[in-house]
Amino acid sequence: MKNLELASQNKVFGGWLKQYTHESTSLNCTMRFAIFLPSTASSAQPVPSVYWLSGLTCTDENFSQKAGAFRVAETLGIALIMPDTSPRGEGVADDENYDLGQGAGFYLNATQAPWNAHYRMYDYVVKELPGIVEAHFPVSAVKSIFGHSMGGHGALTIGLKHPDMYRSVSAFSPISHPMNCPWGQKAFAAYLGNNKDDWRLYDACELLKLGKAELPMLVDQGDADNFLNEQLKPEALKAAAALHDSPLELRMQAGYDHSYYFIASFIEDHLHFHARYLFAEQR
Amino acid sequence: MKNLELASQNKVFGGWLKQYTHESTSLNCTMRFAIFLPSTASSAQPVPSVYWLSGLTCTDENFSQKAGAFRVAETLGIALIMPDTSPRGEGVADDENYDLGQGAGFYLNATQAPWNAHYRMYDYVVKELPGIVEAHFPVSAVKSIFGHSMGGHGALTIGLKHPDMYRSVSAFSPISHPMNCPWGQKAFAAYLGNNKDDWRLYDACELLKLGKAELPMLVDQGDADNFLNEQLKPEALKAAAALHDSPLELRMQAGYDHSYYFIASFIEDHLHFHARYLFAEQR
Repeated sequence: MKNLELASQNKVFGGWLKQYTHESTSLNCTMRFAIFLPSTASSAQPVPSVYWLSGLTCTDENFSQKAGAFRVAETLGIALIMPDTSPRGEGVADDENYDLGQGAGFYLNATQAPWNAHYRMYDYVVKELPGIVEAHFPVSAVKSIFGHSMGGHGALTIGLKHPDMYRSVSAFSPISHPMNCPWGQKAFAAYLGNNKDDWRLYDACELLKLGKAELPMLVDQGDADNFLNEQLKPEALKAAAALHDSPLELRMQAGYDHSYYFIASFIEDHLHFHARYLFAEQR
Repeated sequence: MKNLELASQNKVFGGWLKQYTHESTSLNCTMRFAIFLPSTASSAQPVPSVYWLSGLTCTDENFSQKAGAFRVAETLGIALIMPDTSPRGEGVADDENYDLGQGAGFYLNATQAPWNAHYRMYDYVVKELPGIVEAHFPVSAVKSIFGHSMGGHGALTIGLKHPDMYRSVSAFSPISHPMNCPWGQKAFAAYLGNNKDDWRLYDACELLKLGKAELPMLVDQGDADNFLNEQLKPEALKAAAALHDSPLELRMQAGYDHSYYFIASFIEDHLHFHARYLFAEQR
């Protein structure tokens, strides 16, 4: 990381939302992320954080503008970190469709050309971004992770692989079993190649099959979501969690769709869920 | 009004956000508006409403997506009505700048060509839209009005002229004295011509000079708003209200800017302010 520069700032609910740009070493391009800092955050009293991973086509801004999360985060004294969804820029490989390339990084490390030159969102989210945040802001190393759709997939897979790093994980409408749906199959084939063993490392259901999850999981899914049956498959996640009695609460929410209106309706629940673990004594 | 058609719907916080299109008789074009109906609204128990008037460049969607108002409206049992900010369409006069023409109707009835063929947002908001809403939805005639920037100007002027129709009025960062700022002067000259007497009917400060306002007013203004000194002039509003002891509460909010992050931070206050009057016994 270098050249961390403030791009914008807005006071909101007494705290501050700030966008920064920086040169990412893991992604090899200029990236933008946003951070919400509650008014209580100070170098003397760093606050815990929750990382939000967004869905297809999003930037850091969709969540900031639409989720209504800052009121609750201010009340709880939690920082929120919003990365972008892929590497960006003219020199970064892209695809004409919304579900591959820029805006569709799938929170993995690509191994296949041309994607492997920049697409390492897994390293960015797990290593580089926490390093930046904890070095430059009054944010402690205590953190959790959540996301929506493609970002729900990212949060679940990253949380399941790093129960040492994250206290809890939650998701709205996650792509629960990407190996078994069109979005995931297309992205994994492009980014990872055709060896399905490489795909399993980025599939929440496959990770749950390996053993009991070591961190609590909350998933909300609207039953009026247009992508429910073809792309999201929460029943597969539930079945995989049941195999080893992993701590998953899956809530089907009647009448809700895939939009940020759904996210906004339950964001308070998710932040309170994470707060329970973020503010617990060290496990 | 004819051809009222549902364009979209999202469940949010237990209520429903619905967008409709219709042929507007006052604007002579197809218009879209949105309505939030709390879960308690029914034809047996119609709910009161608050109209939200948006600022320059907005459609009905900015408030719905960014203000975080629906949680509070659901709790209070209040409907929210979100009109567009101008007539729209290929046959509607426009200007290449953001502060005139489509997206910049200024909630007035234009008298000058080419604008007078469609630009009658005052009639639309005061007469046509309430007629549609109260005829087709479980919404009572009890209503209040609020808005942001250009929409704050609209809410204040419409409320001041119709204390019989609205119980209360509030605004975020309103254009308080349009006759005396660049945005207002440009729009009023184009839409109304050069006779300043015609301008006074659409200027909140001028209306307050006429006598004591008959409805309560709440105004929030961020002191880090880039438009504060040149365009918004809340001190003029305060002075005009003081002339006849009109019931204005003006709150300067330290550190806040002109964005929806500011609106979101205080929307709960505004809805509780309106609820106090909407649910009071008839005055």
